[in-house]
Amino acid sequence: MEDITVKKTRSKKAAWDVIPSSLFAKQTHNPIRKIVDGMKLTPNPEKEMIALSIGDPTVFGNLLPAQAVNEAVIESIRSEKCNGYAPSTGKKPIRHGDVIFASGCSGALDLSIMALANPGQNILVPRPGFSLYKTLADSLSIVVKHYDLLPERIWEADLDHLESLIDDNTAAIIVNNPSNPCGSVYSKNHIQGILDIANRYKVPIIADEIYAYFVFPGQEFVSMASQTKDVPILSCGGLTKRYLVPGWRMGWITIHDRHDAFEKQVRPGLTSLSQRILGPNTLVQGALPKILELTPQEFFDSTIEIVKRNADISYEAMSSIPGLNPVMPTGAMYMMVGIDMEKFQAFKDDVQFTERLVTEQSVFCLPASCFQYPNFFRIVLTVPQEKLQEACERINEFCSKYYGKKTNIYDNGVMT
Amino acid sequence: MEDITVKKTRSKKAAWDVIPSSLFAKQTHNPIRKIVDGMKLTPNPEKEMIALSIGDPTVFGNLLPAQAVNEAVIESIRSEKCNGYAPSTGKKPIRHGDVIFASGCSGALDLSIMALANPGQNILVPRPGFSLYKTLADSLSIVVKHYDLLPERIWEADLDHLESLIDDNTAAIIVNNPSNPCGSVYSKNHIQGILDIANRYKVPIIADEIYAYFVFPGQEFVSMASQTKDVPILSCGGLTKRYLVPGWRMGWITIHDRHDAFEKQVRPGLTSLSQRILGPNTLVQGALPKILELTPQEFFDSTIEIVKRNADISYEAMSSIPGLNPVMPTGAMYMMVGIDMEKFQAFKDDVQFTERLVTEQSVFCLPASCFQYPNFFRIVLTVPQEKLQEACERINEFCSKYYGKKTNIYDNGVMT
Ligand SMILES: Cc1ncc(COP(=O)(O)O)c(C=O)c1O
Ligand SMILES: Cc1ncc(COP(=O)(O)O)c(C=O)c1O
Repeated sequence: MEDITVKKTRSKKAAWDVIPSSLFAKQTHNPIRKIVDGMKLTPNPEKEMIALSIGDPTVFGNLLPAQAVNEAVIESIRSEKCNGYAPSTGKKPIRHGDVIFASGCSGALDLSIMALANPGQNILVPRPGFSLYKTLADSLSIVVKHYDLLPERIWEADLDHLESLIDDNTAAIIVNNPSNPCGSVYSKNHIQGILDIANRYKVPIIADEIYAYFVFPGQEFVSMASQTKDVPILSCGGLTKRYLVPGWRMGWITIHDRHDAFEKQVRPGLTSLSQRILGPNTLVQGALPKILELTPQEFFDSTIEIVKRNADISYEAMSSIPGLNPVMPTGAMYMMVGIDMEKFQAFKDDVQFTERLVTEQSVFCLPASCFQYPNFFRIVLTVPQEKLQEACERINEFCSKYYGKKTNIYDNGVMT
Repeated sequence: MEDITVKKTRSKKAAWDVIPSSLFAKQTHNPIRKIVDGMKLTPNPEKEMIALSIGDPTVFGNLLPAQAVNEAVIESIRSEKCNGYAPSTGKKPIRHGDVIFASGCSGALDLSIMALANPGQNILVPRPGFSLYKTLADSLSIVVKHYDLLPERIWEADLDHLESLIDDNTAAIIVNNPSNPCGSVYSKNHIQGILDIANRYKVPIIADEIYAYFVFPGQEFVSMASQTKDVPILSCGGLTKRYLVPGWRMGWITIHDRHDAFEKQVRPGLTSLSQRILGPNTLVQGALPKILELTPQEFFDSTIEIVKRNADISYEAMSSIPGLNPVMPTGAMYMMVGIDMEKFQAFKDDVQFTERLVTEQSVFCLPASCFQYPNFFRIVLTVPQEKLQEACERINEFCSKYYGKKTNIYDNGVMT
């Protein structure tokens, strides 16, 4: 904004009282942190803690990036050609106008939402869904409306519900495929159903495709952009998950324009916004062509094999536990498990259920309230197999103990 | 924001017409790009181009990071322990609550401004000054008010002017020391003068200290925080300049709280905001302790020696050119040169002057209009010495040709 010369000088105040920005700082919340920080997470000292909660495939040390990827970054360093500023939209071997680099897929989503939505406008996001969408939107005073995903249809979007939420202020629909927390992979047909709605109402799509190609054998990853000649799409991706390097913060937006809908304003808007913090680390940017070219297919296959095996093991285990209803994933690295709360009246909700599971069994599953979806919990499937098996047994023991019990343990034995 | 269930469904629109967010995307401008993109920068084909315009010490390849720094990052890679997500505020050997890591000093400034100012509030920034302050503020609808720096006092702030700008809506004062574009280094006394005003009006300070310790022999870098027990300060820094790795995007905020002014709200606000994009690259974060510990003093000394020699050479050269008035820097890596426009009536302003210098002499100096300071240009002092000498000679030739000439070259010989 331009200088304005307000002449009213403020009185010399007596005390320090720095109020943070009510708009940005106070409105920025991470729902996961908010819920998890409110939980009493004291593990049972007799049992080793097993965290099935962390969406970081590297925490257990069993999954490492491909050697070619490490070597490519070391080459960037030794070349001494990757230390300077890159163009804010990215250092690309051939200047590729349709890709904008960002600080992780989070940065890509941040830019995309900022570029498309104004404060007071709304974006449609999936429920259950990755909580960052809401965190980012909240911090920018953009309204979030949740469209339901249907567990009975392996987490397809409820298209009627989605359509009913669109109004004149809808700036974008976020579609996350494959999905965190669901582990679902959408069919061509379902993607076309979503695109059809977007097209009818002329709402652009932000496709969160950070788990692109992270699908189980026999499944196919279908990108949103491949299925439309009409709907303009910002596709957000990155190295984070499939290349097993979340900390490297290498993400991007691919601009799939249609009917020149993005050309005049959105594309320059994205370029301007990218200048605020100047993109991801240049050592990784410089290594990117080699990373994409030299990571062997077996590397991806082997990660998926591990995740799929863990999915099978835990699905089978959870299916046989009375009161739990797992939904078998087909991709990404998560499984959602329904809790029949009628059968676990000892607990008020999924948060109390998972909290108590830590206290007694030292197993931490993320309550799906973190994804705006109560009565479920999410487990991460990148854990070493023995740990996962051990965790399943403990969950079984825990559930057997409380199944059908009517007493709320948190109310001193008095039913509420 | 919470779900709101506006039922008004929008009509199915006939055509795609995606309007970008007017608040964020359209308001985000880089004044440097805006001015430079509007210039006709066609070098003289007879002369090799010399760019004295780019604030990136690595572009000429003459300045490289210390070997110990490269090795520390290679060790991060080989350790295979730096691939996962770090805490959003940073991976610190001992959890150090007073430092928040960010994506470059730009990211640190972005977080600091967002944490302290609301849309409609104002921040005070130096003129001439680094244009990112305005870019960031604009994109967040925060008002920018410029306080003058005085070339005749080697770019000290005009304290009376600064004080006169403070009003009830002033959320922070940004102080950049050592300065881009001025190359100035503030004395203890001057810093105390600024702090005194901040204290009287209870306005917190954002200290942009990305050039900390980047000062010429005999000069002393005095941090803002070292001089006050009363004024709360967010100090923004990073590896970018002094360690010669701008592309690595390693920056930080050091929180210097006083009177618990930041404790209750600003600190948690910064932590929340840092979760939006999850901090800088973890390979560099992991290497940071070694980088800070092992970079030898001679490395810094040698950079400064080069910059100081270039400052001496170009100051002497420019001083002897009639119509130019260089201000000798005492730190950072820039020099500002005043243009006596009365003597160069062939040109409308500093933009035309520097544009024509490219056309005729293939030397590009950044017009200081980019720093909201017309009738000056800025040169970068990290250029190889021969190139700088050559550039000075060409500038001399150019100035001699136009000094005292009254014809505006852009108006076909007709005086305007
Ligand atoms: C669906 C989804 N989108 C985006 C992200 C963020 O990815 P990045 O770490 O690259 O910012 C995640 C990370 O967990 C995710 O699950
Ligand atoms: C005064 C000043 N502050 C901040 C920055 C940004 O630093 P970084 O590249 O670490 O984001 C610069 C870069 O030129 C600068 O000159």
